[in-house]
Amino acid sequence: QKLKIGLIPADGIGQEVIPAARAAIEALGSEIPKPEFVDLAAGFELFSASGEALPEETVQALKDCDCALFGAVSSPVNKVAGYSSPIVALRKRLDLYANVRPVISVAANPEDKPDIDLVVVRENTECLYVKQETMSIGEHGKEARATRLITERASHRIGKMAFEIALGRPRKQVTVIHKSNVLSVTDGLFRDTVRAVPRVVGDGRYDSVKIEEQIVDSAVYRLFREPQIYDVMVAPNLYGDIISDAAAALVGSLGLVPSVNAGDNFVMGEPVHGSAPDIAGRGIANPLASIRSAALMLRHLGYAAAADKMDKAVDQVIREGQVLTPDLGGKSKTTEVLDAVLKRL
Amino acid sequence: QKLKIGLIPADGIGQEVIPAARAAIEALGSEIPKPEFVDLAAGFELFSASGEALPEETVQALKDCDCALFGAVSSPVNKVAGYSSPIVALRKRLDLYANVRPVISVAANPEDKPDIDLVVVRENTECLYVKQETMSIGEHGKEARATRLITERASHRIGKMAFEIALGRPRKQVTVIHKSNVLSVTDGLFRDTVRAVPRVVGDGRYDSVKIEEQIVDSAVYRLFREPQIYDVMVAPNLYGDIISDAAAALVGSLGLVPSVNAGDNFVMGEPVHGSAPDIAGRGIANPLASIRSAALMLRHLGYAAAADKMDKAVDQVIREGQVLTPDLGGKSKTTEVLDAVLKRL
Ligand SMILES: CC(C)[C@H](C(=O)O)[C@@H](O)C(=O)O
Ligand SMILES: CC(C)[C@H](C(=O)O)[C@@H](O)C(=O)O
Repeated sequence: QKLKIGLIPADGIGQEVIPAARAAIEALGSEIPKPEFVDLAAGFELFSASGEALPEETVQALKDCDCALFGAVSSPVNKVAGYSSPIVALRKRLDLYANVRPVISVAANPEDKPDIDLVVVRENTECLYVKQETMSIGEHGKEARATRLITERASHRIGKMAFEIALGRPRKQVTVIHKSNVLSVTDGLFRDTVRAVPRVVGDGRYDSVKIEEQIVDSAVYRLFREPQIYDVMVAPNLYGDIISDAAAALVGSLGLVPSVNAGDNFVMGEPVHGSAPDIAGRGIANPLASIRSAALMLRHLGYAAAADKMDKAVDQVIREGQVLTPDLGGKSKTTEVLDAVLKRL
Repeated sequence: QKLKIGLIPADGIGQEVIPAARAAIEALGSEIPKPEFVDLAAGFELFSASGEALPEETVQALKDCDCALFGAVSSPVNKVAGYSSPIVALRKRLDLYANVRPVISVAANPEDKPDIDLVVVRENTECLYVKQETMSIGEHGKEARATRLITERASHRIGKMAFEIALGRPRKQVTVIHKSNVLSVTDGLFRDTVRAVPRVVGDGRYDSVKIEEQIVDSAVYRLFREPQIYDVMVAPNLYGDIISDAAAALVGSLGLVPSVNAGDNFVMGEPVHGSAPDIAGRGIANPLASIRSAALMLRHLGYAAAADKMDKAVDQVIREGQVLTPDLGGKSKTTEVLDAVLKRL
């Protein structure tokens, strides 16, 4: 038996951190079936060279994999005709409807509870990300419109995912993030549908989960003032995008925060950070978010022992504080941080 | 000559902080014409009692005022038929197209530069706030859609406001906030229109202003990591809403952050905080954001000496740290903080 893993480093530091994640997976032992890696292309750099950001072969090859790891995409500074973000497209094509982003601070002492320990569960297929935009000319110049789509179906399944995750955590609390004081129809539907999940599922399974809600602006405010009030935060796509970056600021660096894009049949790990063109190619990108994304992906597939082992190695490296990349105030290279993790695996 | 000021305390702590701002204005001397106050009604509580959140008389009376102060509105926990936010409506009815929110930390020493000193310039009339929402039933249940409108006209005038504000500041820098990597048409139009302001205005007036840009998610991340990179941040409505709350978290409390809703012919001060139902009626609301909003309103009308006087009194109270409300870790009441300000006026 093998574990077939698609690798899509894509742009910028994606090319540096995905190989590190691969090396960490290869260093695992019998906790997982023998991994087999499939190198796949996508990204803005590919688009610039070939006119395609997400080749159809990449999508088809992924359907033959057990899971995948995605690096990061660069965004063109100016609008480029025909270009559309391959990560947004991939999430939709593979119906990876949940973007799960745990944000955890590493306690100084392994026995201590971390100060910040929350999970952002971001809806990954709709909201303004449906990219239905139009441009017209009105009386006073150009007028652009975008459609924000919120469906009951997508809100229910992301809500269910949030309740399911909360069930596995000590605090068992879900906070729905919305702006229904302005968007009473769309965010009202999101809010009501998530709140209704326990009733609709109906088997009492979520009876122990407490449900809270927060308006998005005040949610971001409170995230900075009292992050400990949150356990699982469930949000429509765009709010989830912003909130997960905000939460990342709390734990020291975007270079630490992993995610998985999860659907019912496939899971793709992806560091929350971007392609970081300013540091790309210099060998100083932080590989820890990608290694944690690999762990999260394996955990999602049921390989908890492997995931624990990787997470512990990463935590130890952070805790020791000797071998860190510049984003964490250190002076080490990507490869040195990777070696430190490998030694502790 | 008189200065006619409309007062709309609206809901919750609005009823406590607007009277405080009134008292601070009354304590001013010859820096302003004799103030005359007009009490006006609006809000969710009013809606619950009368079926109207924003009476037409309030709108008409405001047209007869020189300026106004607005408190805060409560949002119903559940959707209430016929209710729509009166503050969103007022901004549109009076065409108060700019929501200007300075976020400044008070330096320990009056001679020192503050650590955080930025202004969020939020577009105030469109984006998802046009509230064009529809609900339909699809194959898999309910489907809700909202329209996000971005026009060249609104983007140009808010951009111009941002450049104008930057011109009056030492650093003279404007950062455009957008998400054009996903919303290439709407946010592309916003970004391009703001960037084009100096060229369109065309008289070289803004030649000294530096223009930067940031994707909204990474803008929030960097706001927390390195707030000093920002001077003037200009954003579409919803991003501006979130960013100003995020920035407020950096200076210690939402209870400190003022704003004005400004149009070409009218200005309305408004604290950035909400109606705070949890503490309403207990006499412990922080009046400083409202007093600062009054100062900002007066500054906008050209009464700089009056505004300086009020701001200095507020800064002194914060710096001394003896008389503060609980949101700032103090134990004082609204009236005690107000008295402390009045003594220093
Ligand atoms: C690159 C961009 C399209 C993407 C998003 O907005 O989803 C990124 O910010 C993320 O969070 O993965
Ligand atoms: C109350 C709400 C409609 C309002 C907004 O979103 O504009 C508030 O959050 C604000 O920032 O003034």
